[in-house]
Parts: sequence; structure tokens; C-alpha cells
Amino acid sequence: MKLYTYFRSSAAYRVRIALNLKQLAYDAVPVHLVRGGGEQRQPEYLALNPAGLVPTLVDGPDTLSQSLAIIEYLDEMHPEPSLLPGSAADRARIRAIAQAIACDIHPINNLRVLQYLTREFGVSDAQKNAWYRHWTEAGLAAVEAMLAGDPRTAAFCHGDTPTLADCCLVPQVFNARRFGCDLTAMPTSLGIAERCAGLDAFRRAAPEQQPDAE
Amino acid sequence: MKLYTYFRSSAAYRVRIALNLKQLAYDAVPVHLVRGGGEQRQPEYLALNPAGLVPTLVDGPDTLSQSLAIIEYLDEMHPEPSLLPGSAADRARIRAIAQAIACDIHPINNLRVLQYLTREFGVSDAQKNAWYRHWTEAGLAAVEAMLAGDPRTAAFCHGDTPTLADCCLVPQVFNARRFGCDLTAMPTSLGIAERCAGLDAFRRAAPEQQPDAE
Repeated sequence: MKLYTYFRSSAAYRVRIALNLKQLAYDAVPVHLVRGGGEQRQPEYLALNPAGLVPTLVDGPDTLSQSLAIIEYLDEMHPEPSLLPGSAADRARIRAIAQAIACDIHPINNLRVLQYLTREFGVSDAQKNAWYRHWTEAGLAAVEAMLAGDPRTAAFCHGDTPTLADCCLVPQVFNARRFGCDLTAMPTSLGIAERCAGLDAFRRAAPEQQPDAE
Repeated sequence: MKLYTYFRSSAAYRVRIALNLKQLAYDAVPVHLVRGGGEQRQPEYLALNPAGLVPTLVDGPDTLSQSLAIIEYLDEMHPEPSLLPGSAADRARIRAIAQAIACDIHPINNLRVLQYLTREFGVSDAQKNAWYRHWTEAGLAAVEAMLAGDPRTAAFCHGDTPTLADCCLVPQVFNARRFGCDLTAMPTSLGIAERCAGLDAFRRAAPEQQPDAE
């Protein structure tokens, strides 16, 4: 398998965690999102991924995009360990936590959105950072409520093994720290992120461990 | 089943389509996103859905959030007709199209984001509309490329029956038209949306057909 990735992309980071949890080997192909106006906007990359976003996973004849779709695919092709365990309602909960991050936080704070704010609205760096923190803190507060208020939360977001939800939580907490978000009201989320950081699969997926890290 | 919905919420619209495609009866509970500062921010609603977003589906003892997670749940509980048919790679493609809309377009143009742009950055209505059109047109162009460039696209986004991807495409096209987006370069997407509009399940889910429509 070939993963088109960028060390700091939180969507690519999710997929790297899932690949490691499944103990699947892959070749990392770095796509630099900033250099030269963004390699993800080059025709060669757009032919693989028309949205011009990382990650892309190539598995034999199949070219897959969208981090959550890729992780569900990996889980269907390589069921153990399961990243979506339990009943239909359990799986819905895991997916909802993942989507509360992947839909409600991350896209609003994506690099291209921040670039638009600066370019079109002329917002200052301080305003841009306030925007980033606003959506991250509001979004993670909702995730914290989903986690703290549910007895299915245990060592990880759902039970005692990592799931799709943890694959999303850890990169988002990483980003939140990078932008200096206030995470004091999120002890459950931080405890889980801490526990994940103790696992080799999460450590090897971290931005600073990637071949293209700067 | 009870669906907390708002007639114009495109996430709720997706779930209404899925419920209708599965021929599942439900009680609609309207949540007005604008009136009184937004009913979704009231404590009663936040207890159900900590993110304060619609939709929420209550099915017996289970309270579910996030439109795509809800639709996957419905598909697992009521497998026919399948909204995620085919091989793992096919399912990944259907999910990727859905997420290209639900992650990459819709959250950036959500009501709360537009409200932030006005309140914090003081952008004009024209700037806000340009923002809306920018993300919708760029996102739908990517979806069009995913659809037009793949032989699995047929009467609908994936094959000859509606899937999760169509549940997402139709509400997004509805929104795009509402904001006057330029859709001339998207004939495949528009053809599919047109075909969906001919189906009762889609028609009954449309905003103007809802009890809370204004």
C-alpha cells in the first residue's frame, strides 16, 4: 500500500494510526502542502485525488480518499483488531465521535480555510488564531461531553481498545496543543490521548516521527 | 423513532432521505436553529446532543448524532435497500463522496460559521456569500470529478440505486442553488440530483415538504 501523506496533516495522521494499529506496512509518499503553492494542487496529485487533499491510499487497483472512508476500508479488509467494535449503536457512537472531530472541527481549521481568511478578509494572525481556538475548543468540549457522559468510555474513547474515535481524537488534541487551545475542561479526552501516546502504533504515527517532518 | 430536525438543515435532510429510502416511519421534532438564539443551544437539546447540532435520532434506548453515523446505523439495522452496496472498495468510494460533501463543504458553510464571520470579522453579506460559493463550488467540482471520472457512476452516484452518497449530494445541490452557486461545470452531479428528485423518498425529504418549513 502507498499512503500519500503530509507529516502535519491531521487527516493523514489518523490513517497512519489506523495502519499501525492493524500492523499494515505501507510506503509513505510525502505531499508538501505548502511548498511551491502546495504539491496537492499539482495535476499528478489531482489525478489521484480530485479534491487536492491528503491523504490518498493506493491499495492495488484501488485509489481511496477521505480519511474516515479509508479507515473503514482498512477495517473491512483487515478486521483485526477491530476499529469499529460492538453493536450497531456502539459503532454509531464511535463514528459520531470521529465525525464530531472530522466534520465539525477539522475542516473549519484546515490550512486552505485559514489561507482564505488571510487572503480575502485580511484577518490578522491574532484573529486567525482566535478562530482556530474557537472551533477547536467548542468542538472538543462537545467531544468531552460525549465521552465523559457515557459509561462506554473507558481506557479509550469506546472501551479498552483503540477505535476509529481514538484515531481522530489524538491528531486533534495534537493540533489543539500546537495552537495553544485551552484544554483544561477536557480531562477525559486528555487522559485518553495520554494513554494512546503510550502505544507504539500512535507514537510511530506522530508528525515528528514522519520522514517528511520539518 | 424520533428525528430532531430543522427543515433547512442539510445534515437533517440527508437523514430524512435515508429514512424514506428505507421506508422507516419517524416522528419529526423540529429544532429551530435561528429563533430565540437557536433552540439547538437550549439545555434540553444539549443533553441529547452536546454539540448542539441537528440532527439527532432517538431509537428506543439509543440517542444518535452525526448524520453519516446515523445513516450507517440505519443501514446496519435495516439492511434493505442497501445504502452502502458492493465491495469494500465500492463502499469506500461511496463514503468518500459522502465525506467530500459532509466534511469538505458543509461544515465550512454551516450557519454558526457564517454567523462568526459576520460577528467577529465584520464581513459584508457579499463577502459571506462569496465565501459560501467558493467552498461549495470548489467542493462540488471535486465531487463532479469523482463522479464523472469513474465507471461506477451510473443513474446515481454509485450504480443504479441511491446510496449514502446521493443522500449527501442532493441536499448540497439544494443549498448550492439557494446561494446562487455556478453549477454549469457539474452536469453529472446535476443529472443525478435530477434523477433523485423524481423519487418519492427524496421529494418527501425536501425542506419545503417539512412540517416546520417557513
